[in-house]
Amino acid sequence: MAHGVATSRFQVKTEGREDVVDITDRVAEGVASAGVTDGLALVFALHTTVGLTIIECEPGLLEDFRDTWRRIVPREMEYRHNRIDDNGHSHIRASLLGPSLALPVSDGRIELGTWQRIVLLEFDPHPKTRHVVIKMIGECAGL
Amino acid sequence: MAHGVATSRFQVKTEGREDVVDITDRVAEGVASAGVTDGLALVFALHTTVGLTIIECEPGLLEDFRDTWRRIVPREMEYRHNRIDDNGHSHIRASLLGPSLALPVSDGRIELGTWQRIVLLEFDPHPKTRHVVIKMIGECAGL
Amino acid sequence: MAHGVATSRFQVKTEGREDVVDITDRVAEGVASAGVTDGLALVFALHTTVGLTIIECEPGLLEDFRDTWRRIVPREMEYRHNRIDDNGHSHIRASLLGPSLALPVSDGRIELGTWQRIVLLEFDPHPKTRHVVIKMIGECAGL
Repeated sequence: MAHGVATSRFQVKTEGREDVVDITDRVAEGVASAGVTDGLALVFALHTTVGLTIIECEPGLLEDFRDTWRRIVPREMEYRHNRIDDNGHSHIRASLLGPSLALPVSDGRIELGTWQRIVLLEFDPHPKTRHVVIKMIGECAGL
Repeated sequence: MAHGVATSRFQVKTEGREDVVDITDRVAEGVASAGVTDGLALVFALHTTVGLTIIECEPGLLEDFRDTWRRIVPREMEYRHNRIDDNGHSHIRASLLGPSLALPVSDGRIELGTWQRIVLLEFDPHPKTRHVVIKMIGECAGL
Repeated sequence: MAHGVATSRFQVKTEGREDVVDITDRVAEGVASAGVTDGLALVFALHTTVGLTIIECEPGLLEDFRDTWRRIVPREMEYRHNRIDDNGHSHIRASLLGPSLALPVSDGRIELGTWQRIVLLEFDPHPKTRHVVIKMIGECAGL
């Protein structure tokens, strides 16, 4: 076993408009494939209109979360960005939430609380294919 | 001295309802115990109704911060999640702020600005015991 | 090539009042100078009234982002912190957005999506000189 860096990538298809996609299993697979046993995993979405966070994936709660974004940063406001596109609200939400999420890895697995799930929020109005990179650092069985 | 990973854990008792707990000293102790001299420390709370951030611990400001959360994501709204629990607002706030905070470590200490303190925000209505993990990567005197 | 930690620092002069400074090139220079080829870069601002995030640097959108902060956390509210200073709103915004941003490094460069730029938001009302630290971990050509 040695110390090192490993990288994993995956794509997510979203349906647009506050779609919330549970990516926990995809991140877990990346960590398992890399053989990281102890360290960190950085999950990073390569886009300006999505965000990453942790939430309990209870369906009612996910709907509440969508409503919160619609209330705090409504689509139906004037955005200067909408002179060149239709997604000013999407960018603002994404920059508030952020595309970067760092997680602990222990005993070969992402360490999460009982109810914690990793989600990607699609803030763009339209369905998209999203690219996510996982960068892992630590002890790797495979190195 | 060698490069490696170290882990530290601690618990925090909170009083519920926007309690703000300064955990800077606990994180500093974890870094000191592990003997990390140069690298990163990831602080991660294993819960879906707390958040971590940096703030100046001036008592008036902490009260302002609590007020901001009550104003932006009020407890007194309808949340679908409240059909099965009483903390829809707590989950939403926690997912907005996030449970993950990465910090630089230099010269054997967490590197913070003069007024920066690490805080855990309890968004749940009720007192809780919270579990926090610190995952450190870098040069360790003890490895 | 070896595994290790590298640190870089730079300063940013801001104009106060929601000034948004694109620091992508500064971070990229830090990563290039350190010779990190694969790993993570943590960008951390050592202040309680600035925030870091990712956004597309389209001028209209940056103005929309400033407006959003003025709307969600207005300067013109009562803050207890303003009994001792004039920047209660600045602290609240900074604690909501956070001073910590972790990025993947691949092939010797920060890995970003096409439109992603790293920005520092100045929430203080007054022009300031800000100190930013970059802590990098991974494979370094220079170690």
